[in-house]
Amino acid sequence: MLIESEFDIQFRLAVPAPMVAMLHLHPSLESQIRAGNELIVEHLDGDAKRNIATTEYHDSFGNRCTRFVAPSGTVRLSGTSTAEVDGAPDPIHASAQQAPVQDLPNEVLQFLLPSRYCQVDQFGPIAQELFGWMTPGWTRASAIRDWVHEKVTFNYSTARPTKTAMDVFTERIGVCRDFQHLAITLSRCQNIPARYVTGQLGDIRWPYSGPGDFSAWYEVWLDGRWMTMDARHNVPRVGRILMATGRDAADVAITTSFGSANLVKFYVESNEVTEDGTKIPVLGSPALQVTPV
Amino acid sequence: MLIESEFDIQFRLAVPAPMVAMLHLHPSLESQIRAGNELIVEHLDGDAKRNIATTEYHDSFGNRCTRFVAPSGTVRLSGTSTAEVDGAPDPIHASAQQAPVQDLPNEVLQFLLPSRYCQVDQFGPIAQELFGWMTPGWTRASAIRDWVHEKVTFNYSTARPTKTAMDVFTERIGVCRDFQHLAITLSRCQNIPARYVTGQLGDIRWPYSGPGDFSAWYEVWLDGRWMTMDARHNVPRVGRILMATGRDAADVAITTSFGSANLVKFYVESNEVTEDGTKIPVLGSPALQVTPV
Amino acid sequence: MLIESEFDIQFRLAVPAPMVAMLHLHPSLESQIRAGNELIVEHLDGDAKRNIATTEYHDSFGNRCTRFVAPSGTVRLSGTSTAEVDGAPDPIHASAQQAPVQDLPNEVLQFLLPSRYCQVDQFGPIAQELFGWMTPGWTRASAIRDWVHEKVTFNYSTARPTKTAMDVFTERIGVCRDFQHLAITLSRCQNIPARYVTGQLGDIRWPYSGPGDFSAWYEVWLDGRWMTMDARHNVPRVGRILMATGRDAADVAITTSFGSANLVKFYVESNEVTEDGTKIPVLGSPALQVTPV
Amino acid sequence: MLIESEFDIQFRLAVPAPMVAMLHLHPSLESQIRAGNELIVEHLDGDAKRNIATTEYHDSFGNRCTRFVAPSGTVRLSGTSTAEVDGAPDPIHASAQQAPVQDLPNEVLQFLLPSRYCQVDQFGPIAQELFGWMTPGWTRASAIRDWVHEKVTFNYSTARPTKTAMDVFTERIGVCRDFQHLAITLSRCQNIPARYVTGQLGDIRWPYSGPGDFSAWYEVWLDGRWMTMDARHNVPRVGRILMATGRDAADVAITTSFGSANLVKFYVESNEVTEDGTKIPVLGSPALQVTPV
Repeated sequence: MLIESEFDIQFRLAVPAPMVAMLHLHPSLESQIRAGNELIVEHLDGDAKRNIATTEYHDSFGNRCTRFVAPSGTVRLSGTSTAEVDGAPDPIHASAQQAPVQDLPNEVLQFLLPSRYCQVDQFGPIAQELFGWMTPGWTRASAIRDWVHEKVTFNYSTARPTKTAMDVFTERIGVCRDFQHLAITLSRCQNIPARYVTGQLGDIRWPYSGPGDFSAWYEVWLDGRWMTMDARHNVPRVGRILMATGRDAADVAITTSFGSANLVKFYVESNEVTEDGTKIPVLGSPALQVTPV
Repeated sequence: MLIESEFDIQFRLAVPAPMVAMLHLHPSLESQIRAGNELIVEHLDGDAKRNIATTEYHDSFGNRCTRFVAPSGTVRLSGTSTAEVDGAPDPIHASAQQAPVQDLPNEVLQFLLPSRYCQVDQFGPIAQELFGWMTPGWTRASAIRDWVHEKVTFNYSTARPTKTAMDVFTERIGVCRDFQHLAITLSRCQNIPARYVTGQLGDIRWPYSGPGDFSAWYEVWLDGRWMTMDARHNVPRVGRILMATGRDAADVAITTSFGSANLVKFYVESNEVTEDGTKIPVLGSPALQVTPV
Repeated sequence: MLIESEFDIQFRLAVPAPMVAMLHLHPSLESQIRAGNELIVEHLDGDAKRNIATTEYHDSFGNRCTRFVAPSGTVRLSGTSTAEVDGAPDPIHASAQQAPVQDLPNEVLQFLLPSRYCQVDQFGPIAQELFGWMTPGWTRASAIRDWVHEKVTFNYSTARPTKTAMDVFTERIGVCRDFQHLAITLSRCQNIPARYVTGQLGDIRWPYSGPGDFSAWYEVWLDGRWMTMDARHNVPRVGRILMATGRDAADVAITTSFGSANLVKFYVESNEVTEDGTKIPVLGSPALQVTPV
Repeated sequence: MLIESEFDIQFRLAVPAPMVAMLHLHPSLESQIRAGNELIVEHLDGDAKRNIATTEYHDSFGNRCTRFVAPSGTVRLSGTSTAEVDGAPDPIHASAQQAPVQDLPNEVLQFLLPSRYCQVDQFGPIAQELFGWMTPGWTRASAIRDWVHEKVTFNYSTARPTKTAMDVFTERIGVCRDFQHLAITLSRCQNIPARYVTGQLGDIRWPYSGPGDFSAWYEVWLDGRWMTMDARHNVPRVGRILMATGRDAADVAITTSFGSANLVKFYVESNEVTEDGTKIPVLGSPALQVTPV
């Protein structure tokens, strides 16, 4: 299954500001990319466009990051990419095992620690009371995801950048990043390594037909590898395309601006490309067809 | 100047627990180590001792970490090291410059971001009001350190593991890690990269003669390198020996236990070793002799 | 100057819920009321209306409170009142004095204490650093109001019921109640008694012409009486009509529902009534005419 | 049963400060007082003592409050009182009913609202998940008390004045006021009116023999009256003597100082006085004799 995604994000700045963007597909998808995956940064002045110089680096999590200085005026970040994904909905690994902490790989240990929006050090007894009695591994990990999905209500208008897992636990309302932060925190408290993911979700617009958006989900480390979880949607989806991973949203902001930058346009869309080149909505998940949530 | 430091830390456990320790001198000190720097992990049973198997790795910050499974009963972590340090008090770099964000090395950028105990995303206007009018670079960076030192009172009895920079800002009381967390947060808000450091401070016991302890300080990135700051002591000290660095205390706990482990002994001491092998207290800082704080 | 105000507030409930409303004009305005000031509570069923039985009481702050059990279905709270107010803009008492705490009346002391949204116990040093050097009394009290007005940006979309003065101090964004909570907290820290006020502000719609709303402001105790302050608008306004006072918004919610009640209509309007009975917008404040804010 | 209690509390002040004390027995005990119940406020200067003038008032909760200006130097607050109490342990009202909110007396409604340390507005779903399925009334109210008692560990060294119910819920550690704040908050969330109480607990020193102290407990409104609950001790005790009640500790501080005052002595003791005038420890609770907790 081919997914083509494109975005056009524009900021207006009164004074120049250095920025970092994480808008490429994740390096782990390298072999699946069929076209594109360039990030174009331009200064817009009426009809005139001028390319802005960028440099790249990989952060300590292996994410591909782009640096540039956004000039005053309007700056556009845009790109198109086509990637081949397997087209199957998120798998269910009902028998996946949770390794004892001593058997976790060294580089996975950091995903048990507290981080900015995931106060693992405040949720220990809460997580233990809710989930400590459950079978470790997939059962417990997916119960945490289900609990968050069940208890938290989605609401765009309550988004705020400083919202933590504790805020989500008490307010019970949030956007996709908030759902994942709470689920990540509860998972880590139960010694299940969990990391935050940003990416594109082809059928994010389903069941309504609104504007596209990037999405956030999370991954848990079971059976010796990272497995997809999504406390926001909580039905197996198709066409997830990973962009960046980190401990929480503080590590993988789509764009970080060191100075004031006003978002003035935000367009994201991803579609399936059929064999004859037609673009169709990504609506492949059988679960979605049957039991809309 | 030779500094010999030793520690003996003991835990009692009811059930075995995996642990991670950061008790070696920092890899950057490799060429200065004259003896020791081994971490010995033992099970104590009356007079009987048994070595516990350990493995090592470097985390994403380059710290040397030791993993092992602490058995039930009493576990001792001990070690001795001798390192050569220059013996000069912390330097004052009054003309050190602050680079624009776009000129910072890639790997330094992460030290501008919010982290568990350093809520950079909540302190922006507060930092700007207090320090935004000052000359960037050393002047502003050291003013932040001085402000925290002046406003916060040291008090061991108020320590708690979840205390954040915001708690320190409102309570105005804390231990060494709390002073540094607040100063780090304010520095990052002013686009001065700042990282947390754990280590040994030879004259930590001064001006009183109490038990030794590990210490925490922080570093700011000016003139293209990390420079020592200490909002707790705030007089140039001698004999700092770096053990680990990270974004904040969540990254560089001396020991992390994944399960319950009761601290039952905590002994740390470091001394200067003179040419004839005598150990003397590290009291070399001229500033300390003159203006005790 | 005569002000006529009316409101029509409707909730939809799935199951009956007890409610408390504070929708009358404040008892201190008794002699100024020319008409109305009844609260009508009705059950609406299509075109059919049925009155709901209510009882009244005064809470410990002297506010007039109405209790009733809202049945399932749609409930309407409505009323009209006409009151005579002096028509002058909020006075400036530039020489008003701040009494030493020992000279405050007993019943005023409670307005120095911490309350739900006003964490006086967390702002002591912050308030002292910002305002401690100023002349006590009106100068300092109005400086606190000005500071909050200057530093906080109004934004309806960031409202949330649990937002505290500390949240406002860090986020620097809020609605009218948030401005007042921060100003109240800072005032109390400086030993200026401050209480929260809900009421109607005739010209709240100015400078834009939007829907009406109730408003919140606060009062400080200077020169032996309560004086109006408004950190949200911060220009002398005309036609304030007091409804309730308390330590903070927790004490004087317009309506409190003990059970789920969905707000489905919210209409509030107040107008000046001229001698010939014409209703005109309340736009009397000279300050408003000249320096729109 | 006669209980004689005495206290001697001393502060040292560098500059004079107005103070409010709540150190009398509660007005509701008037008819049970056999001797004393005076509050003596003195300035101490070596052996010389001088009485400080005081005035009294009742706050909005009906508590007896004493105001005075503490001069610089050492100030002593002392008193002795003898009161007759029934000598029976705290009763168990296993069939006590919880009134629907609409049937609560007007003056009780305020004890359902959020207050400084009791964030009722943040605990709704948490309380509902833990206790919403239980039989309303005594069963649910005592289950809340038991849960807090079971989950929170007593520890003097973690006390801090700004600690809220949410802090107690996450840290699971606290002193008596912290236990009660969490239990009060959870009770209110379940529409059980709950108020905070300060007083003397004759057998507070049991099961150890340490220094005396004032204590805090709480009361819930069931069967049309206030009933004693104590999430800290959670065994029926004898000899509770009520001093003040309020929404939480912010309302009923033993002493409030508007300025700096250093506590230098704190002595509280209460004993049973037998018929022949002998003082014996209050150890009457059968529960205490049998199942020490």
